[in-house]
Formats: sequence, structure tokens, C-alpha cells
Amino acid sequence: MRKRKKVLIGGALVFVLFAGTYAQQQQKEELPPPPPLTKQEMERAKEIYFDRCAGCHGALRKGATGPALTPDKTRKLGTETLKTFITYGTPGGMPDWGRQGILTPEEVDLMARYIQHDPPPPPELPLGEMKKSWKVYVPPEKRPQKPEHNRNWQNFMAVILRDIGKVAIIDGDTKELVSTVDTGYAVHIARYSASGRYLYTIGRDGKVVLIDLWMKKPDKVAEVKTCYDGRSLDTSKYKGPKGDFLDKLAIIGCYWPPSFVIVDGQTLEPLKIVATSAYTYDTNEFLREARVASMVASHYDPEWVVNVKEAGQIWLVDYSNIHAPKITMIDAERFLHDGGWDASKRYFLVAANFRDTISVVDTKEKKLVKNIKVGTRPHPGRGANIDHPKYGPLWCTGHLGDNTIRCIGTDPVKHPQYAWKVVVKMEMPGEGGGNLFIKTHPKSPHLWADRALNNDPKLQRSLFVFDKNTFQIKKVIEIPPEFQGRAVHLEYNKNGDEVWVAVWSKKNEPEKQAILVYDDKTLTLKKAITGNWVATPTGHFNVYNTMKDIY
Amino acid sequence: MRKRKKVLIGGALVFVLFAGTYAQQQQKEELPPPPPLTKQEMERAKEIYFDRCAGCHGALRKGATGPALTPDKTRKLGTETLKTFITYGTPGGMPDWGRQGILTPEEVDLMARYIQHDPPPPPELPLGEMKKSWKVYVPPEKRPQKPEHNRNWQNFMAVILRDIGKVAIIDGDTKELVSTVDTGYAVHIARYSASGRYLYTIGRDGKVVLIDLWMKKPDKVAEVKTCYDGRSLDTSKYKGPKGDFLDKLAIIGCYWPPSFVIVDGQTLEPLKIVATSAYTYDTNEFLREARVASMVASHYDPEWVVNVKEAGQIWLVDYSNIHAPKITMIDAERFLHDGGWDASKRYFLVAANFRDTISVVDTKEKKLVKNIKVGTRPHPGRGANIDHPKYGPLWCTGHLGDNTIRCIGTDPVKHPQYAWKVVVKMEMPGEGGGNLFIKTHPKSPHLWADRALNNDPKLQRSLFVFDKNTFQIKKVIEIPPEFQGRAVHLEYNKNGDEVWVAVWSKKNEPEKQAILVYDDKTLTLKKAITGNWVATPTGHFNVYNTMKDIY
Repeated sequence: MRKRKKVLIGGALVFVLFAGTYAQQQQKEELPPPPPLTKQEMERAKEIYFDRCAGCHGALRKGATGPALTPDKTRKLGTETLKTFITYGTPGGMPDWGRQGILTPEEVDLMARYIQHDPPPPPELPLGEMKKSWKVYVPPEKRPQKPEHNRNWQNFMAVILRDIGKVAIIDGDTKELVSTVDTGYAVHIARYSASGRYLYTIGRDGKVVLIDLWMKKPDKVAEVKTCYDGRSLDTSKYKGPKGDFLDKLAIIGCYWPPSFVIVDGQTLEPLKIVATSAYTYDTNEFLREARVASMVASHYDPEWVVNVKEAGQIWLVDYSNIHAPKITMIDAERFLHDGGWDASKRYFLVAANFRDTISVVDTKEKKLVKNIKVGTRPHPGRGANIDHPKYGPLWCTGHLGDNTIRCIGTDPVKHPQYAWKVVVKMEMPGEGGGNLFIKTHPKSPHLWADRALNNDPKLQRSLFVFDKNTFQIKKVIEIPPEFQGRAVHLEYNKNGDEVWVAVWSKKNEPEKQAILVYDDKTLTLKKAITGNWVATPTGHFNVYNTMKDIY
Repeated sequence: MRKRKKVLIGGALVFVLFAGTYAQQQQKEELPPPPPLTKQEMERAKEIYFDRCAGCHGALRKGATGPALTPDKTRKLGTETLKTFITYGTPGGMPDWGRQGILTPEEVDLMARYIQHDPPPPPELPLGEMKKSWKVYVPPEKRPQKPEHNRNWQNFMAVILRDIGKVAIIDGDTKELVSTVDTGYAVHIARYSASGRYLYTIGRDGKVVLIDLWMKKPDKVAEVKTCYDGRSLDTSKYKGPKGDFLDKLAIIGCYWPPSFVIVDGQTLEPLKIVATSAYTYDTNEFLREARVASMVASHYDPEWVVNVKEAGQIWLVDYSNIHAPKITMIDAERFLHDGGWDASKRYFLVAANFRDTISVVDTKEKKLVKNIKVGTRPHPGRGANIDHPKYGPLWCTGHLGDNTIRCIGTDPVKHPQYAWKVVVKMEMPGEGGGNLFIKTHPKSPHLWADRALNNDPKLQRSLFVFDKNTFQIKKVIEIPPEFQGRAVHLEYNKNGDEVWVAVWSKKNEPEKQAILVYDDKTLTLKKAITGNWVATPTGHFNVYNTMKDIY
């Protein structure tokens, strides 16, 4: 037995640390057992959880934007308390699912019981499994060699019709409906290939659809499902000494499995999966569920910017050899969400909304420039770039948590005194934040902002137009009363003289919904795009501005 | 309820896949309950598991070199069957712990019961926790400005005295014992800083000790524990246009937590942890426990080669900005183990012993060159480089699973016909493999090989000396009978005219143990280094050859 004593020198240290974990486990076992749940209830609860809860609390329920919902916590609270939270929400941001009527009392009860059980392990999705969902409807060699229509397709708008699982393609010149395409469940964003020819959509369920805008009637040419829960997508936009990657690759950012997936840009064939599970940059907590928030493609390097939300890391992913991707893992701030390029497209600015911060990375030097405190819960979308006579280039963000829009100087060379500081603070009238999107265009004198998530129904339907020079409000526009819902998402046309806005209703009543087109010169309504096909529009992406990152 | 139907479009897909997992869980619950285990037994079993089982089966018991030992499998087998495996081993490589007497019958019974329980979650080790174990005994400013002795310290040998938790430092010129230093539990390897001045040891328990060889009596100047289970370490060796990193940083490769940790090279202050959890390169299975096997430092780039064993990926980690490490994740082969540089130090060759393969990466172009089939279970150590008149530069490996040493051409420019192929196969007399280390030196005409893990006691004590030109056996040397144990690990002195060999006994009987020094010219024993301090020597690392990667 002499030998055993020796080998336990190290074991003893391990024992001390394991013992704590074991004690926790013992304690957990002393909690009341979870309330019963039938197999049918379990299955139904899983669906609701994925749909309503996983986004904030995580598929593993370890918490993210929302707190952890592990059984050691939920079983201490008990069914009745949990029902109260689910019904009435919390001031911290938990929605009042019950009071809103989105969950029935019976569903609230079900979910209160479900979350006291161990979370079922969410499934993996290896490339082999992805390939089972991969379909090429029209192979690349059978696609048009040039556009089969005479439309100005670089001014097309892809409009997400979220709750009916479609995308409408609208001719931005004529405002005619060109095509509607089945894209499936809850499309989150649309992006274009470097040439603009290909439109990609990504659904909340991780389904990617590829649409060829050169077809007489643009339609889907391929699809694949690369995640169970996905939010972001971009394409390869580099051509230069390191290779020609135009229209060659796409990247999909997944919430679950926490990963990014690289696919062939022409066929969507899944090529590579990389886990984003990581340690938080600050507390070094290992997160299996460190998820991919926004992503953008660099124009001058074969590289994507991938924001690993909960880890607080901005990854620059060099895709020039996808079997040896080169990833620069830049410590930034938590929880990374959405962001965009500065005017020079060298710096990427992204919201870290856990800490009311904008993190700036230099994609040339591949390092963090600065974490900049802004307002409460910044939500820039891709932000808005202003070239100001005094401050020089500025990049601006709105906020979910307050009524301000703040602009950061982005030119350390010619305007160093303003660089990487908040130098402008614009205020929108009315209480509270709720801004989801701001937008401008280099040719426009204006910056537009919505207020879609404000509690005030009037503000939800208002658009705030600022003068880019004076930063003063020029006009507050309320959308016409005949259209019901919130005014959300702003997008310029290719020429930069129109602003498109969705009227976002959760109800499927086409006659009360529209995409509104405002004249950016006169700030008046130019056209309400309506039709039987209009249902729950939530966003619209101009081909040219999106492919060139003009905002 | 209309709306719920819509939102479930995606949920339904998820449900189908979750359902399979749920069914498995249900099935698991129908297995017999695990046999009882007292809290004391649980604690003892955890220590034994860490010490004897985790290396092959993984801390999470999901399998690695050995099969998975999750309760769904172990409870089907039951206590009696498991006891048989643990006592008698398996032909697949499971040792006969019981028969060898390393585990008592009572311990075998304990482990058979323990592994039917859920594995207790192994603890994390964030930087803050590491810092609690961090001690600087002599701060850098109080260390010598130049060597305080007149010894030829670049020819020091650090000898690991594994089971007594010490490292002995021996003067390679005089063969005198210079110092013994307490390094703690089961040191796995020793490495030197770029200048050679600093000696680092890493224990199986993740404890790192820093020893200053310039002190009159070299002693430890700092220590830190960065893992619960660690195997590898290297230092920063780059000086050039990208910075001066000589003696600046060290990297520690951990089995648990599965990660690498970057520390200050002068103080061992923990600076950065990066998870190595990843998808396997081929089957895309997510492995929390993708562990760091061997690592080496590049001499011409600020980069470490980090082998992520179970993922089958070779990571090139650029350390020039540790807050934005740049990692090239090269798909290679599973399970990566040990390896070394070719003569030019551009190519790194590493064993992938799950597939009897040597993977070659080009650290300049940062891509896989080739996966090359070799013999059964290659175990190169760092390999051996030969400059052959016909074949040009060769890199050779021995094998655990057969009696061959195979050499691969490494010069695609001047000897393209031999490059990245096995062009030489040397055979050692006697049945079976069991080779752990081979070694040569540019100045020597010989290549030496041990047979430490062979089953034949005679072969275990034999050294096989090959002619580097003819590839023929020149001499088989049996170590002197007065020393008990196996002959293991070969190391040249700085001049390349002596070969040092450890006599590795598990018994702590100093009078029967030694470090043997052979004359490489005459192939005769020059000196047996003995003394009361000699206990379980298992390896020895020459300062100059290790710091310069000469092998």
C-alpha cells in the first residue's frame, strides 16, 4: 500500500475540489422531486421551450441573456412561483407570456413544471446529418448565365414575411412583387453574395435557403439545415492576392449547436463545422453554449467577423483554407450582439449589451481597439455611418434601454481627438427606449430610427428622422392609421433617396399590413406596398446596400 | 391557437430529434440502479479513477484512447464483468491492474461499482483559481544576472524522479548531482526556456515548477497549478520582426480542463486560458474533452504547435498577442499524441495512434502536408532526424505495437521522390513492440531505441543501436544486471558523444537504480550514475539539445 500513498499526492488536491462539487450534488438531491410530466407533455414543453425560452436562457438552461433555469434553482422556486414569472414577466426583461396571451394558462403551468426537470440534452448536427437536409433544386451549371429579366435587380428588396415562412422579392424601382419564395420558419436575416446575385436567408431553425435573383422568377436553388437554432449568415466577399472567393462560400452562425458552419456558396453543401464553445474572456467560465451572434464579411481579407456572444470574444475567421481555418480570438466584452463596419470597413463595432458597451476591433491589426461605454442596452443593427464636417467619420448606435442614439468617432488618423469616444448624443422624444434599428445612406442628409420595442403604442408606430449635420430631430413621422402594427426596420434603396419601413403586426391580416416607402427628400410617404401576399413583414434587405455594406 | 401552430414549424423538426435522445434517456432509466457506494468510497474511487483511468477513458468517461465508461454501458455489464476487466485487462490495451497488484481486490471491486454511477462533474480552473496556487519564491529582479557557478550548465541534465516528486539536476560534464528540486507529483516532462536558463517541469496533476539553472544551487523560483491533469509544456522561442519572446512565455497543455494555459515565462503568472473542446475533424462529434497532447514551439514564428488529441486537429497558436491569440486549426488525424520537428524545423510530424498514422503539418504554409500510414501505434517521442546520403533528410518513429522503426523523407525540394513516404523500415529483433523512445544526434552515426513497454523482461532491458547509414543493427545492449527495472528514455549530451538511459523501476530501492551513460563511439557503458537520491528515474532532458530541439 506504500505505493498508493505516493500516487495520491496529486489525487488529494483533486479530491478537495471534487468534494465541493459532490456536496452540491448531494444538496441537489435533497430538493423536492420535479413535478410529474407525461411523455406527451415533455415533448410539447420542449417545443415551446425552444421557441420561446432557449433564445435567452439557453438550450442547456445555463443562462445567457436570461438567468439560468437549472433544476437546482427552479425546484427551489417551485411551480407556483415559476408560473407567476412566466405569466407576468419580470422587470429584468422576462416577457409576460401569460398576460400577453402568447402562452395559455395551461401552457404556463406546463412550462413551470417542465423547467424543474433536467434539460434534455439537445442533439448534435454533424455534417453527415446536415447533408440529409441538403437539397440542390437547380445545380449551378443549369442556372442562368446572365439575368433572365431586364429589372434593375441590384435594387431588389428581399422582404421577410416572418410568420408565414416566406420572403418576398420586390423590385425597388417599380415596387412590383417579383416573386415570393418559401423559406421556412421565421427567417431572421437575409444576406447577398459578393456579386449580389445570390440571396441567402437563415431561419430561426437554422434552415438556409439560396435564391438566384437572375432567374426569370427568382426562386430557391438550394437549401440546407445547419443548426437547430440559427441567427446569422454572411458570404465570402474577398478577391485579391489570397484568392478569389467572390460568391464561393457562406458562413452560418448557430445558437445550437453552438458553432459556425461553412457551406459552399453556390450549392450550400456543408463543408466545415467549428465549435464556438469557449471560456468567457473575463471570468474563464467554460460555456458549451457560447453562441454565434452577428457576423460580417471583410471586403479586403478572406475573413469573417464572428461574434461569440456569451464568451465576449470577437473571432476573425480566415476562410482561405477551410480545412485549416485561422481564427483570431479577440477578447472584447459580453454579451456580443449585433454590429457593423465603420465607413472605412477596417473597424468593426459591436454591441456588448450585458455591459452597455460597444467593442471596437481593428480587423487589419487584428486586435481590440477599445470597449466604449454607451447607453443602456445598445442595439445598433449594423449601425449608421455619418461623415461629419467637425467630427469626421462617426458610427452610431441606438439603444433598447434608453431614448438616445450615440455616435462614436472612427477616424484615429485625421480626427484623433474624437476617435473611439462617444462624441454625439441624440435624443428621441418620449419615454423609454425600444429602438431596434437606425439607418442612413452616404447620399442622404438624414438618419432614421424606429422605436419598435417601446411600450407606448404611439412611439412603436413612430419614425424619428434626424439631420446628420446638426443631430437635431427634423421630423417625427407616425405611420398611417390604416396599417396596424409597429414600424420596424429601415432600409434605403440603392440610390439612397427612399426609406423602406415594415409595418410589423403579429396578426395575419394582409389588408392592414404594408411595406411603406418614404421619400427621403420630402420625408413623406411615397408608396404603401400592399397586397394579399403581405403578412408579418419584419425586415427588408436591399441588394446593393447589403452586398456593399452601405449603412 | 392558430399562432402556436405556426411557431411550431421549426419546433417539430427539433422535436423529432430530441425524441430520440429522450428515448435513450428513458432506456437508461430502466437499467438496474448502480450498486451502493458510501461517501468515503466515492471519494477514494475518484482519486483512483483520476490516477489510473482518466488518462485513457477521460475525466467525463466518454472515452478516448480507451472506450467510454458511461453508466448506460457499465450498468449493462454489471459489477462482476467489470471486475474481470479491471483485474485481468483486455487484449485491446486495458492493463491488468488487479493481476499486477496495482489495485487490490477490494479496490477492483470499488472501481467496478464506482463506474456504474454518473461521473461527478470535474471542476473548472479559471485564472483566478490558478492564481491561488501561484507562488513566486524568487522574483525575477532578485535572480542572478549571470551564472553563479562555473559549470557547463548548457550540458546539465534534468532527471525526472517520478514517484518521489523530484527532479535531479546533473552536471553532464562531471556527472555530479548539482541539485534535487521538489517538483511534486509525477512529473511528465521537462522543458527549457529559449536561452536554456530556465527549466520548467509539468506534473500529471498540472503543477508547473520553474527552476533557475543560474543559481549557485539551482532551485525552484516559482510554481503554479494550471490544470487538474496536465501533460505538456513548452516555452516561447521566437525573436524577430514580430517581437522578442525569448524566455517570455510558457504554454501548458491540459487534459482537464481540456485547454491550454499561457503563463508568464519568468514568474508563471497565469495569463490566458483557451478551451480545446472541439468537433472531431472527421465525424463532427463535439468533444468537451478534446485534450492537449504534445506541444512544441516554433523557432521562426511566434507560434506553438498544439496537438488536440481526440479532435484530430493540430492547432498553430500565434502568441504574439495573448489577448487575441490566432489559432490555425488544421484537420489532421486522431488521436494525436507525441511528435517533433523535421531537421529544417519547418515541418512538424506527430503520431495519430488511433489510425497508425503520422500527420505532417507545414508550419510555414500552415496546412496539412499529409497523413502517412506507418506501423502499429507509432510513438515517436519527438522522433529522430537522420541526414542520409541517398534519401536526404529523414524523420523516424518507433512503435508501441510492432518492432519496427520507420523513417519518412522530409525534403520535398531536393529529394521529392522520398518526401512524405516511409522509405526506411528498420526491425528490432524479438517479438512485439513496446518501443517508447528513439534518439539520435547530428554528430552521431547511431540511432538508439528502447523497448521499455515490451512484455519480455529481457527486451525491456535492452537497447538497440542502429547504424544511421545502413539502417542495420550495430549492437544490442543489455543493461547491467545489478540495476533492476526497464531501460527507458534516451538522451544525448550536448556534444552528441554520450547517450543517457534511465533504469526505471517502480520500486524505491536506490541501490538498484541508476542513470546509465553510454559512450556513443564505443557503445559501452561509461558511467552508472547512482546514489541515495536515485529513485524511479523516468526521463532526462539535456539543456542544449532540448532548448534547440536537437533530436
